Amino acid sequence: MDASTSVVSEFDLIRTYFTRPTRHAVLGVGDDCALLQVQPNNVLAVSTDMLIEGRHFFAHADPRQLGHKCLAVNLSDLAAMGATPRWATLALALPAVDTAWLREFSAGLFALANRFELDLVGGDTTRGPLAICITIAGEVPAAQSLRRAGARVGDALWVSGSLGGAALALQCAQGAVHLNAEQQTAVNPCLHTPEPRVALGLALRGIATAAIDLSDGLCGDLGHVLTQSGVGATIAYANLPRHPVFHELQHTALEQQCVLAGGDDYELLFTAPSRAQRTIEQLAATHQLPLTQIGMITSADTGLVVRDAQGQRLQVPRSFDHFA
Amino acid sequence: MDASTSVVSEFDLIRTYFTRPTRHAVLGVGDDCALLQVQPNNVLAVSTDMLIEGRHFFAHADPRQLGHKCLAVNLSDLAAMGATPRWATLALALPAVDTAWLREFSAGLFALANRFELDLVGGDTTRGPLAICITIAGEVPAAQSLRRAGARVGDALWVSGSLGGAALALQCAQGAVHLNAEQQTAVNPCLHTPEPRVALGLALRGIATAAIDLSDGLCGDLGHVLTQSGVGATIAYANLPRHPVFHELQHTALEQQCVLAGGDDYELLFTAPSRAQRTIEQLAATHQLPLTQIGMITSADTGLVVRDAQGQRLQVPRSFDHFA
Repeated sequence: MDASTSVVSEFDLIRTYFTRPTRHAVLGVGDDCALLQVQPNNVLAVSTDMLIEGRHFFAHADPRQLGHKCLAVNLSDLAAMGATPRWATLALALPAVDTAWLREFSAGLFALANRFELDLVGGDTTRGPLAICITIAGEVPAAQSLRRAGARVGDALWVSGSLGGAALALQCAQGAVHLNAEQQTAVNPCLHTPEPRVALGLALRGIATAAIDLSDGLCGDLGHVLTQSGVGATIAYANLPRHPVFHELQHTALEQQCVLAGGDDYELLFTAPSRAQRTIEQLAATHQLPLTQIGMITSADTGLVVRDAQGQRLQVPRSFDHFA
Repeated sequence: MDASTSVVSEFDLIRTYFTRPTRHAVLGVGDDCALLQVQPNNVLAVSTDMLIEGRHFFAHADPRQLGHKCLAVNLSDLAAMGATPRWATLALALPAVDTAWLREFSAGLFALANRFELDLVGGDTTRGPLAICITIAGEVPAAQSLRRAGARVGDALWVSGSLGGAALALQCAQGAVHLNAEQQTAVNPCLHTPEPRVALGLALRGIATAAIDLSDGLCGDLGHVLTQSGVGATIAYANLPRHPVFHELQHTALEQQCVLAGGDDYELLFTAPSRAQRTIEQLAATHQLPLTQIGMITSADTGLVVRDAQGQRLQVPRSFDHFA
């Protein structure tokens, strides 16, 4: 006898699976609005992401991993802004009430939320094709926010972690690439349970001149920074930190596609003056997270240039676009 | 030659249809997060609503009306909290890029946003079954927010506007009820272009003890106020302001269903001490909006009682629930 099978109403569903005590809210779930107090001298950083079954995740995706991922991609936007996570709302369209699914999904979501003391303060549930929309809000002193427009000529270009793992896992899941079991175990977490670089984003306040999280692929996301900062960049492909499995595969075209244009890595790409190099290396040690200098910011007229180890210019692959 | 047919990428789509100058944002659309400054002494009021094709609106719904409605239902939540509208984010899943649809949808959305000086500060677009998720944020001095929990025994119970029009329009559209052309013209705006009672919500600061907006039906939404305030209520059915078309129909069962349990009216239901009666009547005149006293708050043990003109107790119909 499973008590949860008696859950039928929308309000029971919200109460059972999505209402937890809040830490930072004046008023949480259960009224027309949540009420939130932003600390003096801080501004609110807000972002929203919608994940759709069959588009952002497979049908029958593991619900606990899905709960993690849909919050992780939003936390990653706060990280890229240098903001402290505070609050989120969740809108959820469900084909049916599946209590086992809801239990796992909410467990994955709250496990990650709790690590960052993030409060779920509101939401909406409805029947429909599975869709998950999270809006997240954090706080940051306005002058310390990490914007896309701040990169300057001569800044070094850095990236956290390693690249291409999520894209490789996706290609494997789609049957386009064969990976052995060990390799799959190594890359699957990149795709299904990415780690938002929140602590790094906070540590980069006052150090990075610009930042963005890598959701659509290195070249495409870097392109946003370059456009908004009015600069160009040169990347040394050989310096790019790639997922270790690529060293085993020795498949150059696949590797370039995944590393330069693969989405879903959720690493931070950031720029900083060259004098910050020591400080950033110390951050890498403190956070036990590789931080790699991958290139330099140049003037706008050079655009984005990627060179291989021989100095040859590589073609920049297209990044993911939902409508292109 | 329509320039908009050349719009293909996700970023072009956002730039063309959903990027407008902001009035109140430190940073609007185009970075990892928007940055928003909340005024000192105010708290942020946040709400989210997701609308799904075939569930909340018909397939092939008029896109301009849809743009209006999906923002109106969110503005209504701010109204029910007594909050000043400030910012919104929009997540949009689209089956395909239909530029005519996007032009109309965004026109409807921005026409309403502009009336309230609301900034669209962020969003997400993706391909998928049509789904629209708006998260809205406003500002209110914490002590003046209109919460569901504040109703007290002896308070009068009030409602704005008239009830049941949206539910009647829906029944007609579904073929369950026949209305003539004139009657359809009278009720359709209730369903398709509801007017959020923002100015009333602001005016009720310091007057109303509790408030909620009527999205799921009078009895169901009132039930939330009663539960959270720990009180009961008695309603005089004869006093309920019903849409004028009901007077022509003379269909008691239909009228009771629509007026007591019909969703989508987006009127404000609020409680206030009896001494506020004159003030509230003056508000009605100032805002040119009927405000009707429909009953009284009683002690919790009486629950919710609806009586007809003969003093007979009416059965309280069930309100809408997406999963029940």
